Amino acid sequence: MKLQLPPGISAPAFERAMAAFRRVVGDEWVLDSDADRHTYSDPYAPGPEDEWAPAAAVAPASTEEVQAIVRLANEHRIPLWPVSRGKNLGYGGAAPRLPGSVVVDLGRMNRILEVDEQLGYCVIEPGVSFYDLQAYLDDNKIKLWQSVPGNGWGSVVGNALDRGFGYTPYGDHTANICGMEVVLPDGDLIRTGMGAIEGSRSWHVHKYGYGPAWDQLFVQSSYGIVTRVGMWMMPAPESSLLLAMNPPKGEDIGWLVETISQLRLRGVIDQSPFLPCSFGKLSLIAQRADLHDGPGPVPEEKLAEFYEKEKLGFWIVGLRLYGDESVTRARAELIKKAFARHTDMPFHEIPWTAGDPRPIYDPSLAVPTAMPLQMSNWAGGRGGHLSFSPVLPATSKDVLPQFHRSRERYREFGFEYYGSFTVSGRTATNINMIMYNRDDADEVRRARALFDVLTEDAHKAGYGEYRAHLGWMDKVADTFDFNNHALRRLGEKVKDALDPNGILAPGKQGIWPSTYRSHRHG
Amino acid sequence: MKLQLPPGISAPAFERAMAAFRRVVGDEWVLDSDADRHTYSDPYAPGPEDEWAPAAAVAPASTEEVQAIVRLANEHRIPLWPVSRGKNLGYGGAAPRLPGSVVVDLGRMNRILEVDEQLGYCVIEPGVSFYDLQAYLDDNKIKLWQSVPGNGWGSVVGNALDRGFGYTPYGDHTANICGMEVVLPDGDLIRTGMGAIEGSRSWHVHKYGYGPAWDQLFVQSSYGIVTRVGMWMMPAPESSLLLAMNPPKGEDIGWLVETISQLRLRGVIDQSPFLPCSFGKLSLIAQRADLHDGPGPVPEEKLAEFYEKEKLGFWIVGLRLYGDESVTRARAELIKKAFARHTDMPFHEIPWTAGDPRPIYDPSLAVPTAMPLQMSNWAGGRGGHLSFSPVLPATSKDVLPQFHRSRERYREFGFEYYGSFTVSGRTATNINMIMYNRDDADEVRRARALFDVLTEDAHKAGYGEYRAHLGWMDKVADTFDFNNHALRRLGEKVKDALDPNGILAPGKQGIWPSTYRSHRHG
Repeated sequence: MKLQLPPGISAPAFERAMAAFRRVVGDEWVLDSDADRHTYSDPYAPGPEDEWAPAAAVAPASTEEVQAIVRLANEHRIPLWPVSRGKNLGYGGAAPRLPGSVVVDLGRMNRILEVDEQLGYCVIEPGVSFYDLQAYLDDNKIKLWQSVPGNGWGSVVGNALDRGFGYTPYGDHTANICGMEVVLPDGDLIRTGMGAIEGSRSWHVHKYGYGPAWDQLFVQSSYGIVTRVGMWMMPAPESSLLLAMNPPKGEDIGWLVETISQLRLRGVIDQSPFLPCSFGKLSLIAQRADLHDGPGPVPEEKLAEFYEKEKLGFWIVGLRLYGDESVTRARAELIKKAFARHTDMPFHEIPWTAGDPRPIYDPSLAVPTAMPLQMSNWAGGRGGHLSFSPVLPATSKDVLPQFHRSRERYREFGFEYYGSFTVSGRTATNINMIMYNRDDADEVRRARALFDVLTEDAHKAGYGEYRAHLGWMDKVADTFDFNNHALRRLGEKVKDALDPNGILAPGKQGIWPSTYRSHRHG
Repeated sequence: MKLQLPPGISAPAFERAMAAFRRVVGDEWVLDSDADRHTYSDPYAPGPEDEWAPAAAVAPASTEEVQAIVRLANEHRIPLWPVSRGKNLGYGGAAPRLPGSVVVDLGRMNRILEVDEQLGYCVIEPGVSFYDLQAYLDDNKIKLWQSVPGNGWGSVVGNALDRGFGYTPYGDHTANICGMEVVLPDGDLIRTGMGAIEGSRSWHVHKYGYGPAWDQLFVQSSYGIVTRVGMWMMPAPESSLLLAMNPPKGEDIGWLVETISQLRLRGVIDQSPFLPCSFGKLSLIAQRADLHDGPGPVPEEKLAEFYEKEKLGFWIVGLRLYGDESVTRARAELIKKAFARHTDMPFHEIPWTAGDPRPIYDPSLAVPTAMPLQMSNWAGGRGGHLSFSPVLPATSKDVLPQFHRSRERYREFGFEYYGSFTVSGRTATNINMIMYNRDDADEVRRARALFDVLTEDAHKAGYGEYRAHLGWMDKVADTFDFNNHALRRLGEKVKDALDPNGILAPGKQGIWPSTYRSHRHG
């Protein structure tokens, strides 16, 4: 990928900045060849890869090097785009929002600094992947479970910082964050919460500290580079029980969400069950061309044939209980009773006991996997996907119209519907996957148009997204419109106070520093 | 109380500001007589009440009036000190940190705007007390429980904003906050999280919104006046079971904290049990003079006599389970098994079923009470108390030395030891109550000296407080000293950006705006 310079920076000025970075990290860790730029571009880019073009990458090995880079970026006015491991697939990968930014790749900072088995937490740097952490737990026979997302080679820290989720009772990853070390845009270094005490013993056990609590201000944020995080972990359970069922009809999602939400609020279920439609399974084990060789999406009849053959319904339901068998058995009976009010389908019950293998195809048993990435191959060619993810109240009144409306939009734009609902006590997060062939310009165009219209539809209904791909960061921010975007106004006031030169992640989640504000929607 | 003007404000200028406030709220809601000033002073003041003297109070009836007052305060350079209901007893009541501030009393804003029984939340204004909310739940037969602290006439919102806690699974009150409306120091109005969407349906069900999440930045904070909050509430349980025991020895606190912490982490207990020492009970039902008529604290032998008569040990342990009986029974067996490893004392088991009365002396059944306030009468005269509250990791390695050290300090300064530990999964919050007679100058002096030394001891051991009385806000902030108080530096940078005139709660939790920074430690 050809060099695209940061706005207003000349080629010689850029070279001087890269030379300064080299003096900090060494020659080999400033990555500014055409091949390097390609490496740090969005592997799923829905459009030309240079739409969100990195100018280079720099890979520091320590917090001190991060501080030095930030100070130099201020001096040379170079916009930075920090990534933990750069595997934010579906949301832009390692690529920056502002073309010409320099990616700060924290992948070399991959130390596991502490694991406290008794109190259930680890302290890690951003470069630690789910696979790395699992290897450490296994090697040291530590009886803690991590909660894993769909991509095990992603960063544990990075995933939590973008509010990713997993499938265990610790599945709300950002809620597991307890205590950070952060390099601020002026190079100053803070520790949050109780960590603000030199020699603190409670940094990673208590979330709030004294006065305002800052952790969530550095999440989906451009206010600092997070260099260390305490993450709460779950004690390995003695046993587990999976209750599985495949409800047949699309409409079932209404009572499913309400029933699970109520069980969750009553403490009968501890995890936030993930309910994909059956297409989710198909997309992992097949490609469109296996079922259909015409243009457009696989016809409904052919999908129905596959689901029948695989004994699938419309939705795939798996509720997993964790803990002592006496408690999980009692809870299972309560779940069966609640479901029996809506269906006469029995649950398939699959017990698990400590010591049994934990298969990678079931992330609710907390083993890192990369299997879900398979879905990117669905459409053929160089595959990619986008996730459209509004958060709804967990009621059928909210979920059913959202389901029908989105499914209709998928048909309208020529895609197979792939919606899922992750049900917590009070919310149903509705992840809609759009898979496309990057080499099919028409399909990419339709994918983008579908994303736009889904965003507008959800906004009209009163729902907002929890996360967005680079290409929609501003559009989604626009939907947060109360009092003429007052919250964004606050966000940008704080941005300008902390980062007057606007060097850190300009445009992240729609927050622009004054220096680059004209690039909004650009 | 005589008028003490805000720093640098002349009497006529102050009068002009009060006149402007009167035009907003009406004559009767600007409260600036000597009697009014007394009303808004600290009722438990450890020293002369004018040490933290309000100049007046103003009581707006709406968010719009709050905005108008904030704008006028900027114009007239009047420091404001917002309180919800002003019942922050033990931490300063309604009194301001900076003498001469005008208290903004939000008690008239007491609407219950919404209660969602299915999704388990309420939306309330800061003037709503725990008693108000309970009356509303009872009148409307809503099957939700609130979590209540020791003072039912306090504000539900105010308590959560100062990180107070209760005794049910929803006892970490600040964690129940989901979505706020906030007037910023410049009078602008924001809604946080999903509420930043006009017409949002998910404001009070999803905590984070899109981009940085702001709720916790307005907690223990001077960054805005919170005018509306969504609070998560617990579905009324079908049944409950209390397991009670009175372990005999001070040293028992080590294994008690560790055992409860592990049960909590394993999901066997959902609440954070409160473990007071037996003196806590004594202080509610007697006064020092009932047991002892000499100078100094009640001798240990006399305390021991009382405990023996009342069949009390050193600690009072009550673990409460909530939910379906089949599950609570299974959990109770696991608790008994875990305790049996350390003691052969049996639990006293007290079942409760929906419909049974809920006594006010047991806040773990979530009925508002004011009974704990009785302790202020312990020392006689006009009573008061201070709470010294460091947060420790839930290990015996941390808890035992803290217990021994603090108990020794109480003896040294001539007070009966009253420590308690509230045990969550990973923390033991060690609330130490110091009760004194406000009319006994020597006792007040010793109480203050004890607080100072407890703060220093805890800091040396690596623990910080989660909250502090006005008189220690700066001293506690001083203990958060990593990188030369980098977190406070960040806090004050943001403060200056949002509140350039420094009108909002200057000095709150040790964060001073540049305009009043010279008053630190003053």
